[in-house]
Amino acid sequence: MRKIEEYIDLANKAVNEIQYPAQPSGLYEPIVYGLSQGGKRLRPAILLAACEAVGGRAEDALSQAAAIEMFHNFTLLHDDVMDHASLRRGKPTVCCKWNNNVAILSGDTMLTMASQLLTKGVEPEKAVQLLDAFNQTAIGVYEGQQYDMEFETRADVTIEEYIEMIRLKTSVLLAGACRIGAILGNADKATADALYDFTINLGLAFQLQDDRFDVYGDPKVFGKNIGGDIMNNKKTYLLISALNMAKGADLEELQYWLREPAPLAGEKIAAVTAIYDRLNINEVCQKQIDRYNNQALEALKRSNLSAEAMAFFESFDTMVMGRNK
Amino acid sequence: MRKIEEYIDLANKAVNEIQYPAQPSGLYEPIVYGLSQGGKRLRPAILLAACEAVGGRAEDALSQAAAIEMFHNFTLLHDDVMDHASLRRGKPTVCCKWNNNVAILSGDTMLTMASQLLTKGVEPEKAVQLLDAFNQTAIGVYEGQQYDMEFETRADVTIEEYIEMIRLKTSVLLAGACRIGAILGNADKATADALYDFTINLGLAFQLQDDRFDVYGDPKVFGKNIGGDIMNNKKTYLLISALNMAKGADLEELQYWLREPAPLAGEKIAAVTAIYDRLNINEVCQKQIDRYNNQALEALKRSNLSAEAMAFFESFDTMVMGRNK
Repeated sequence: MRKIEEYIDLANKAVNEIQYPAQPSGLYEPIVYGLSQGGKRLRPAILLAACEAVGGRAEDALSQAAAIEMFHNFTLLHDDVMDHASLRRGKPTVCCKWNNNVAILSGDTMLTMASQLLTKGVEPEKAVQLLDAFNQTAIGVYEGQQYDMEFETRADVTIEEYIEMIRLKTSVLLAGACRIGAILGNADKATADALYDFTINLGLAFQLQDDRFDVYGDPKVFGKNIGGDIMNNKKTYLLISALNMAKGADLEELQYWLREPAPLAGEKIAAVTAIYDRLNINEVCQKQIDRYNNQALEALKRSNLSAEAMAFFESFDTMVMGRNK
Repeated sequence: MRKIEEYIDLANKAVNEIQYPAQPSGLYEPIVYGLSQGGKRLRPAILLAACEAVGGRAEDALSQAAAIEMFHNFTLLHDDVMDHASLRRGKPTVCCKWNNNVAILSGDTMLTMASQLLTKGVEPEKAVQLLDAFNQTAIGVYEGQQYDMEFETRADVTIEEYIEMIRLKTSVLLAGACRIGAILGNADKATADALYDFTINLGLAFQLQDDRFDVYGDPKVFGKNIGGDIMNNKKTYLLISALNMAKGADLEELQYWLREPAPLAGEKIAAVTAIYDRLNINEVCQKQIDRYNNQALEALKRSNLSAEAMAFFESFDTMVMGRNK
């Protein structure tokens, strides 16, 4: 196994080597731009690492790594249209720099290009397996996005529903990348399933940590404004837990802030955080994060990976979860 | 071979038998609705017919027929968002009945479902061939849509560019359906290529006829309002030809109507039609339609199809071109 940074470098190389037709440039330029906006390339990197961990060669999985990053960026182009987002990673989104129609059509093209990259240079038997894994992953991601949109207008979202939504929206793509790498490296079923469970649980732990940092993170390292989810009444793990646990005056006050149409940001964030504090939401959330993270590490042990590969995924876990502690 | 109507019935059956997950219903209901809006099912029908024409069984191509109709309807969902269209075949579009986000996300789901349907129940060797043909077709359709959008803001579109645009936007999907049917029926290369050329040329003839009917059609049978393209300054074969051929006062008058910001519909349509009449645009266009239609029928002769299959595609051609004469 190589170091994580080397897989990320290989992932960047794979993305940079994607070939595009010259015309119509109006269709392909936004794709190149979207992919050049950066991002951590974690999904293609873990695909390449999974391939090598089970005995394959990362160099034989570059096209599939590019496919998974292309798919991820397709979802970003369309999500930004749906969210009316103007900035991503500090740069104008495709729908802002061009327009919604360009983001929709170039996004569609990316999904088909991802399918082409996925099966390129692979024998038919394997291509069909890759396509099955890829399509199932894609359907999961769409279902997650649909639940996320539906939850915006529902007041009664349960913790179980929320976890299922983030499993689909966040974990499934990371796990799908891992599964594709495992297929390419000819993994045995136990190891492929273990790697899948590892990434599903790691994805859940990561997303809950993201929810927690939105309230309890260090603004210097979190990279987003603290309290954004509170201001938007976003149904995160913290808010749903608080609504379940709060009683009497706390519940009334929480509901008051959810109803208040134009609250002062500082005031609302401070008041809701104080309610969370009284309910020990920070600890409740941290315990759940630890539970998912432990499940991720336990899953690894069910694999037939070498000690070296096991250590790699443990340090991958540390890198992902260590962010902004 | 069966009759065209039987292939259309089989195509409808294939579409009606598509299985959907129960949840999230907000994702799948718009898909079922979009597919239930009707349409002639010409693409899946010709896929099934092509399969049988080369020796296969239509019953073994039902999933692929459903895939091609799913793909076609995915493009309609997204096109309607891009065009802000509220009605399709007299019923509210998905983006109007729900909203743009639903049409985008359910559309994405349709594209992935189409890929799943395409390869279902097919041996890997063939699945990979089907996927290649399908993805190439999809990329062509996106490129055609991109050119169509770009042409809206360009004054210097040439006839050659226009033909390339409608080849991509209209012909390629019909031809892709035919190719997929031919692959499923194990066609020889000459026959597969001949069927492809037949549908490419038929598609071009059909689209130019649609342009012609917009000005010279019988409003009782055309199904759309006569003169819509003229009112929208749509760069059709007729307008581009007229701009190439007109001189002096005719050219000035044509350009006046293209610039006029708020013309009376009756007045503009009558005036532009009169210019077209003076330039014999109706005949110029009809000659080009006949040329493409003849090329379609010539292409058929390069195939190794049976006399019965040849006669089938000739009557398919008559049915498509016979519309609203």
